[in-house]
Amino acid sequence: MLAETTQMTTPNTITPSLSIDNINPAVVQAQYAVRGEVAVRAEENNIGNPQDMGQKPITFNRQVAALTELPSLMDLEELNFPTDVVQRAKELLEAMGGSIGAYSASKGLAYIRGHVAEFLAERDGGVEADPELIYLTTGASSGVKAILQLILASEQDGVMIPIPQYPLYSATLALQKAHQVPYQLLEEKQWEPDLESLEEVIKKAAAEGTRTRAMVLISPGNPVGNVLSLEAMNEIIRFCASHNLVLIADEVYQANIANHVLKKFVSFKRALSTHPDEELRTQVPLVSLHSISKGQTGECGRRGGFLEIVNFPKPVQEQLTKLASIDLCPPIQGQIGVDVLVRPPKPGEPSYKKWYKETRTIQKNMNKNAAQLSKVFQSTSKMSSSEAQGAMYLFPQIELPKKAIEAAQKAGKEPDLFYCLELLERAGICVVPGSGFGQAENTTHFRTTFLGDQTDEFVKRFTKFHAEFLERYKD
Amino acid sequence: MLAETTQMTTPNTITPSLSIDNINPAVVQAQYAVRGEVAVRAEENNIGNPQDMGQKPITFNRQVAALTELPSLMDLEELNFPTDVVQRAKELLEAMGGSIGAYSASKGLAYIRGHVAEFLAERDGGVEADPELIYLTTGASSGVKAILQLILASEQDGVMIPIPQYPLYSATLALQKAHQVPYQLLEEKQWEPDLESLEEVIKKAAAEGTRTRAMVLISPGNPVGNVLSLEAMNEIIRFCASHNLVLIADEVYQANIANHVLKKFVSFKRALSTHPDEELRTQVPLVSLHSISKGQTGECGRRGGFLEIVNFPKPVQEQLTKLASIDLCPPIQGQIGVDVLVRPPKPGEPSYKKWYKETRTIQKNMNKNAAQLSKVFQSTSKMSSSEAQGAMYLFPQIELPKKAIEAAQKAGKEPDLFYCLELLERAGICVVPGSGFGQAENTTHFRTTFLGDQTDEFVKRFTKFHAEFLERYKD
Repeated sequence: MLAETTQMTTPNTITPSLSIDNINPAVVQAQYAVRGEVAVRAEENNIGNPQDMGQKPITFNRQVAALTELPSLMDLEELNFPTDVVQRAKELLEAMGGSIGAYSASKGLAYIRGHVAEFLAERDGGVEADPELIYLTTGASSGVKAILQLILASEQDGVMIPIPQYPLYSATLALQKAHQVPYQLLEEKQWEPDLESLEEVIKKAAAEGTRTRAMVLISPGNPVGNVLSLEAMNEIIRFCASHNLVLIADEVYQANIANHVLKKFVSFKRALSTHPDEELRTQVPLVSLHSISKGQTGECGRRGGFLEIVNFPKPVQEQLTKLASIDLCPPIQGQIGVDVLVRPPKPGEPSYKKWYKETRTIQKNMNKNAAQLSKVFQSTSKMSSSEAQGAMYLFPQIELPKKAIEAAQKAGKEPDLFYCLELLERAGICVVPGSGFGQAENTTHFRTTFLGDQTDEFVKRFTKFHAEFLERYKD
Repeated sequence: MLAETTQMTTPNTITPSLSIDNINPAVVQAQYAVRGEVAVRAEENNIGNPQDMGQKPITFNRQVAALTELPSLMDLEELNFPTDVVQRAKELLEAMGGSIGAYSASKGLAYIRGHVAEFLAERDGGVEADPELIYLTTGASSGVKAILQLILASEQDGVMIPIPQYPLYSATLALQKAHQVPYQLLEEKQWEPDLESLEEVIKKAAAEGTRTRAMVLISPGNPVGNVLSLEAMNEIIRFCASHNLVLIADEVYQANIANHVLKKFVSFKRALSTHPDEELRTQVPLVSLHSISKGQTGECGRRGGFLEIVNFPKPVQEQLTKLASIDLCPPIQGQIGVDVLVRPPKPGEPSYKKWYKETRTIQKNMNKNAAQLSKVFQSTSKMSSSEAQGAMYLFPQIELPKKAIEAAQKAGKEPDLFYCLELLERAGICVVPGSGFGQAENTTHFRTTFLGDQTDEFVKRFTKFHAEFLERYKD
């Protein structure tokens, strides 16, 4: 058996071979909240996982996927696939040299990257996009990891991340042995970033010896669902320029706008390319990320996404290409998922009506859930919540009774984890504790999705649980 | 525009934001040969990419995949899918909660990991496998990266890798800022590892301040195709035990044995579990990797694979699980690819005969190509080659004329790259230069696959090119 303690003897041996004390300390350090104790106990991952919450896949997307898997299906006339589905599958197969079973180019198929560029140009009101600056990825998360790995040069380097943040960022920074440089989103201002504090934040990091290299913006936000205004974006771009920061725009929820009257999505690419200060347009390096896992597609399992880089010097771009090549290529069905995301059926095409109905139904349902949930959280005793703006989440606050906090301490758990575990055990509801995302001291939040078709049931069980919880731990 | 030079000023600013001089030096350092200049010029990647070389996908595998993409196809009686295909698709969908569009558990679906464990136990003559110690991966390469990231604790750490090696290892070590500790494969002994030198190798590394943590074995080998004997494996296990090394067994070519009379595949799991020195069986930590990209499946594009860990302390295993969770989950169609790999149709089942015929045809064709190519390389002027044993590759040596070496120097290219570029340009044949894998000083090799059905054409063009090359650069 392996001994319990690690002894370093001569430089070429180590006893035992493997122990928690002699593996990569950066790995041990990294935390990943979204798949933490609650999700593990729930043995599921009700966490931005649309099709696990009952969201149906888009028929057009799946038909194309099935035909690329088994092209012989195309020859069966009785199947009667819509002609645009067959056409798309044929084009994709041809672009792949006949089979989805081969590696593609490491950046993803040029054919699909071309369509991404067209999609981006249309999305951004005609601002051009270059397929060579687009990289298909294995979900957005592999893109985030590659970019941070690329730009972080030393353990002195840091990246500004919003608090609350999506824990992929903190975990990846820990793995890179780099620093988090946290900036606050203001709950009292519907989770807008605290722009006035940014200078202070970067100065404080510098005083601690951290060289800030990049700033992460998540809009629509995860976990809080805020959507940045163009004014805020312009100010952020100016800030990045003045501190030579790379702007990393996590825009995977761009199709998830909960209320178009309240907020509209504008991409950072568009904001940068049309910035009132023209000098900045070619100055700030930008990475923008998108994914097929969210929005109306919700195809998490395919692991597809893409990123676009702007204002990257050519030699740096080449290094990113090399990094991509070490991973060989993103999964082909993920790449196909990108193609159908950026090139959906058009009006007049055989699949259009069905596609339109399906995507609208999903979004309408999500918006209805969002409105319903925020109203419930706003009107429930000892709770508060912002309006739902975008993404798929709400991040309500709970005012915990002192007795509950004491019970949590006794159980050796963070108060929010304690609450969420009780919620899981007593009501069968899985939400993610706020501490995994970061929250103001002595506050308690959780993140919940507004996916799926069980919101009425959620509300019923949740409100019952919450009332009983307050009663149970009444001060 | 960005300035060309990097100026460090105050600790919190850097000008420009991004340049080749201020990004991660480990990324700049990393080389990745397989997708290097030749492959890029060929605009393809004829490099262990079976379905790009004309290998047909296995019908059973693709039928299952298509039905999981579009389950409504199952209801169409006229399609008449074999009952075992329908049954498999239904089971998989049920295990996934109804849709392949959701994230699975980060280690992969427990349902599939259970089948992997059964497959391993059968492969290894009854040696038990635990599904909890099996991790599904995004191809084998993501597994390699995770394991090296996990175990390498500092820049002092190093990993023994064979020379020639598969450049994923050198690239990943460079990204981890860890050291290569190279050991030689002996060309004159059919590429067997030089076991007698291992002690020397580790001592030399120690003298240079490197703490060796692990040893990588690739069997069947990439790029050289050697298959380790059980005797060699037992000796290697003993060596790893005596130096407290983690044994990393890259066994992705286990189904690719070119000549069963010559060599048989034995897994390191089996060798370890039945090691004559019983003490070692529970002492050496082992990671064994497999993939769906090779063998008779050849499904590179799905990005599927798995690894099994043995003798890992529980806390270290938990850290590996955490690392997996940061990547969310491997692509579902890659996971399904693993399921059909480890649980193919059995004799008597409706799909068996077709499956058997398809897989045998592929392997027979590969073996025929292997024998033909090694014979050609052995009988060609100024060339030598070992017998094909396994994997999909041969790594012949070319004795270059002095004039060719001078011409290469003049062109500023390594001689082997020079040869390979001419081979590509003049004969349209894409092979990978030996220098990307490592080769003895002043020798020239290339790696070629023996995939596909164009070997006659390859031989014709290659021998013509080679003769003309020798003539062109005659000393």
